[in-house]
Amino acid sequence: MKPLTRRHFIERATRLTGSGYSAMMALNLIPASPARTLSLQGNGNGKRVLILGAGMAGLAAAYELGKLDYECTVLEARNRPGGRIWTVRRGTRETELEGDEQTCRFDEGQYFNAGAMRIPHHHESVIRYCRELGVPLESFNNTNEGAYYYSDGGRGPLANKRIRQRELHSDMRGYTAELLAKAFDQSALDLPLSAEDKEKVIEYLVAEGSLDAGRRYKGTARRGYRVAPSAYDQPGTPAEAPALLHLIEAGYLSPHFSNVPEYTYEQQTTMLMVPGGTDRLTEGFVKKIGKKITYGAEVKEIKKTEGGATVTYLDKKSGATKALTADFCICTIPLPVLSGIANNFSSDVQRAVDLVPYNNTCKVGLQFKRRFWEEDDGIYGGISRTNLDITQVVYPCSGYLSAKGVLIGCYNYGSTAERLGNLSPAEREKLVLAQGSKIHPQYGQEFESSFSLAWQKIPYSQGGWAVYSPEARQRYYPAFLQPDGPVYFAGEHTSYLTAWIAGAFESAVRTVESIHERVQRGS
Amino acid sequence: MKPLTRRHFIERATRLTGSGYSAMMALNLIPASPARTLSLQGNGNGKRVLILGAGMAGLAAAYELGKLDYECTVLEARNRPGGRIWTVRRGTRETELEGDEQTCRFDEGQYFNAGAMRIPHHHESVIRYCRELGVPLESFNNTNEGAYYYSDGGRGPLANKRIRQRELHSDMRGYTAELLAKAFDQSALDLPLSAEDKEKVIEYLVAEGSLDAGRRYKGTARRGYRVAPSAYDQPGTPAEAPALLHLIEAGYLSPHFSNVPEYTYEQQTTMLMVPGGTDRLTEGFVKKIGKKITYGAEVKEIKKTEGGATVTYLDKKSGATKALTADFCICTIPLPVLSGIANNFSSDVQRAVDLVPYNNTCKVGLQFKRRFWEEDDGIYGGISRTNLDITQVVYPCSGYLSAKGVLIGCYNYGSTAERLGNLSPAEREKLVLAQGSKIHPQYGQEFESSFSLAWQKIPYSQGGWAVYSPEARQRYYPAFLQPDGPVYFAGEHTSYLTAWIAGAFESAVRTVESIHERVQRGS
Repeated sequence: MKPLTRRHFIERATRLTGSGYSAMMALNLIPASPARTLSLQGNGNGKRVLILGAGMAGLAAAYELGKLDYECTVLEARNRPGGRIWTVRRGTRETELEGDEQTCRFDEGQYFNAGAMRIPHHHESVIRYCRELGVPLESFNNTNEGAYYYSDGGRGPLANKRIRQRELHSDMRGYTAELLAKAFDQSALDLPLSAEDKEKVIEYLVAEGSLDAGRRYKGTARRGYRVAPSAYDQPGTPAEAPALLHLIEAGYLSPHFSNVPEYTYEQQTTMLMVPGGTDRLTEGFVKKIGKKITYGAEVKEIKKTEGGATVTYLDKKSGATKALTADFCICTIPLPVLSGIANNFSSDVQRAVDLVPYNNTCKVGLQFKRRFWEEDDGIYGGISRTNLDITQVVYPCSGYLSAKGVLIGCYNYGSTAERLGNLSPAEREKLVLAQGSKIHPQYGQEFESSFSLAWQKIPYSQGGWAVYSPEARQRYYPAFLQPDGPVYFAGEHTSYLTAWIAGAFESAVRTVESIHERVQRGS
Repeated sequence: MKPLTRRHFIERATRLTGSGYSAMMALNLIPASPARTLSLQGNGNGKRVLILGAGMAGLAAAYELGKLDYECTVLEARNRPGGRIWTVRRGTRETELEGDEQTCRFDEGQYFNAGAMRIPHHHESVIRYCRELGVPLESFNNTNEGAYYYSDGGRGPLANKRIRQRELHSDMRGYTAELLAKAFDQSALDLPLSAEDKEKVIEYLVAEGSLDAGRRYKGTARRGYRVAPSAYDQPGTPAEAPALLHLIEAGYLSPHFSNVPEYTYEQQTTMLMVPGGTDRLTEGFVKKIGKKITYGAEVKEIKKTEGGATVTYLDKKSGATKALTADFCICTIPLPVLSGIANNFSSDVQRAVDLVPYNNTCKVGLQFKRRFWEEDDGIYGGISRTNLDITQVVYPCSGYLSAKGVLIGCYNYGSTAERLGNLSPAEREKLVLAQGSKIHPQYGQEFESSFSLAWQKIPYSQGGWAVYSPEARQRYYPAFLQPDGPVYFAGEHTSYLTAWIAGAFESAVRTVESIHERVQRGS
């Protein structure tokens, strides 16, 4: 497989040590996508464009350039399109960089999205392509108050006990509203508000926290029942709220649980998904421009020349080395991969290619004999969260009530994902089942088979997504904003929408605009 | 049509003057449903049971009794089954109590659920029947941070401006977290927490409110962008947060907006729905026991007799008055209707039938030429909320990206619904379009046709659902918990799950258990 590149060593040293993506989201550093309708005039007159990579950026670029009569070829190293849109189904095979091989043994019809799985409702570029390509969209249940939180290793009466998300949310709303109402009462806060306006804030707090007449939080039916209400003589018995201290002791006020992802702009409801698997979006493009894609073409060298660019690649099927020349080249290859490809880029570009950090990320799909999370726990979609290495359990939000199901038993980032990725698939399975059993004791009884991915070890990706620190954004990012002669850069890493499909689309559209403008100018 | 009953006058006087259902939810008085698996032994040996009403309670009772070899007949006054499960589609006709006639002119395939539209994920009795009858379930988007709040009639710079729900939610989390952190700093609160634990609360508040390093709320990208981030050189410009004072002045801290329905146990995500219309749940039952239903049978008298019960009804098709006798009768007729039917019930039952209040509620479905709320506003499902009479705008959460759509332009309760219901359908349409235009100015351009319901004026329902005050629960409710001789009462009004399908199911199951136990005892 690929040799370790210079970049590979650098990034080991500089890579974020924690959950970079989560932290970014918590800080609201990952932003959102505007609508860009592309209605370019004029004609490319058969100018040749070589596109490297058949991920979302490459496919969208080929699609848009095709509309303008450019002659495009897409070189794709894999035997499938889509890049980090990848839906794992029965028969999916993958060999990771260090040689671990897996074949998916799920039942027919079972799947999980190993890469992109959800679309923010404001990522209009994605929605626009779905509309244009006839790809349907449905709601993706990113939140579920019935899913669990599980804090491992805390103290006190709630230590190592799973709780429903509704419980923590209701209790913290209650306690903080009570405390703030008390501070208001004691005039402890010097606020530029009239007495009447203060009264309105207190009224709000009473509603927000579900406080009683004495403005105390004494629990609330919002957090659920010990005995559920029913018909006839069963009014139900609300569950008692734990003390604030016990929530603190158990660890539920730590960032693992308080950095609520669904607060971020990107993960707010409504989130959307492509029914049947995100790869159906890829199929939408392939129907339009599939003939332009050459599969099994592993790029070996990218060279700026006098009249354009020459790309040398290994035709993996025949074993032959081939070369193609074109007027322009759009390079969408992920930076950790590009770093290992010979090139004569400018030194600014080379430095950026080598030094922009990428995130580690793992996903482990688990097929179970029955949907015990629905049948036993009443969990329909959404995500359970924990401070264990598995970080998240993502439940399927389609096929409710059906017999079997695949859930994502681990979705983690950063150093946690690095550790998990360094295990063999069999060891990962073991660890994920052991940790997941703390939340769902049914795992042992119901488990059938797994398929795991450590994206940092997946050939031709070698990472989850670009993670720009403010410094990296300032120092390296600008190198991608201008073409390096005939070579343009596109992909999520050339956007402020890193990690999202929209970043790939927006950058592809911007690249097509730039090339077209240049061609129309005749420069 | 029906003459005004005694009950009708009483309820005019006692009916809750506000949004009873909302208020109940805010107070968490409307509870949730447990799993009840019914696995009764023994045989009814052809004992005859007369079931009054083919709503959910009647259908479930007939279905369960059929399993046990009882001989059931269901008398249904309407020409359709389902009761308050009612999906309005092209050709749906209705004549309200005071003679207003409507025929639905939506396009084929367009519909809205005039009655039950959503199922809490913990209403296991509903999920159990869906599973058993092969009725699929999907997620119902009850919440959408991208939907609007619109406060009419406030003061200040935000007065009469719609805002996205994400804005108010992010701002109030920010301001309250800032204030509470400040109170902590000033040691204004005497808390039984160690210094270390206090620090954890502050850390939580910083995350919860998206506070800056100085623990101040200065806005957050969570609330969205003025210029959206994109590819290349567009990092985006976050929108500025308004001052707390301006939110107060505009009215956004009032109960219309702070009594967040999705906080309640019943309306928390995940909510579920039946794809294609809730009436597909009705169809599931009808496939099993449809032959037992007599339609167009308007009950005129219910009489306890020596050996059982005799029910006299008008066969609306022939105009003939008919009578049926049975060993037992299960009466699921809504109380406002039952109050007008001759009977020889006990005085306790009669009093309860006359005096338990029901809620007014209106829904107005609007078909539009295009889904501008998706195309222009990026709203996929969820509910916009306002203090205007329309109260809610409910967006469809299926068929995203399709051409046309039907949204529910008004869903209100209590006195607001009474006022709207007193208008003619044409006047309701006019009012709903005028008020809705304040949130969606596209209404005027895109509107095609409407269908409106005031449930208090719908024959054979005459109200939305039972609304028990604590007093009504204590004084009247117990009358329904025991049979009145051979007559049993079932329906949402005989449960602590009023207004929900689960209330109907749970009460039906309890009734079947009671009858079967009595038959097995031979009493």
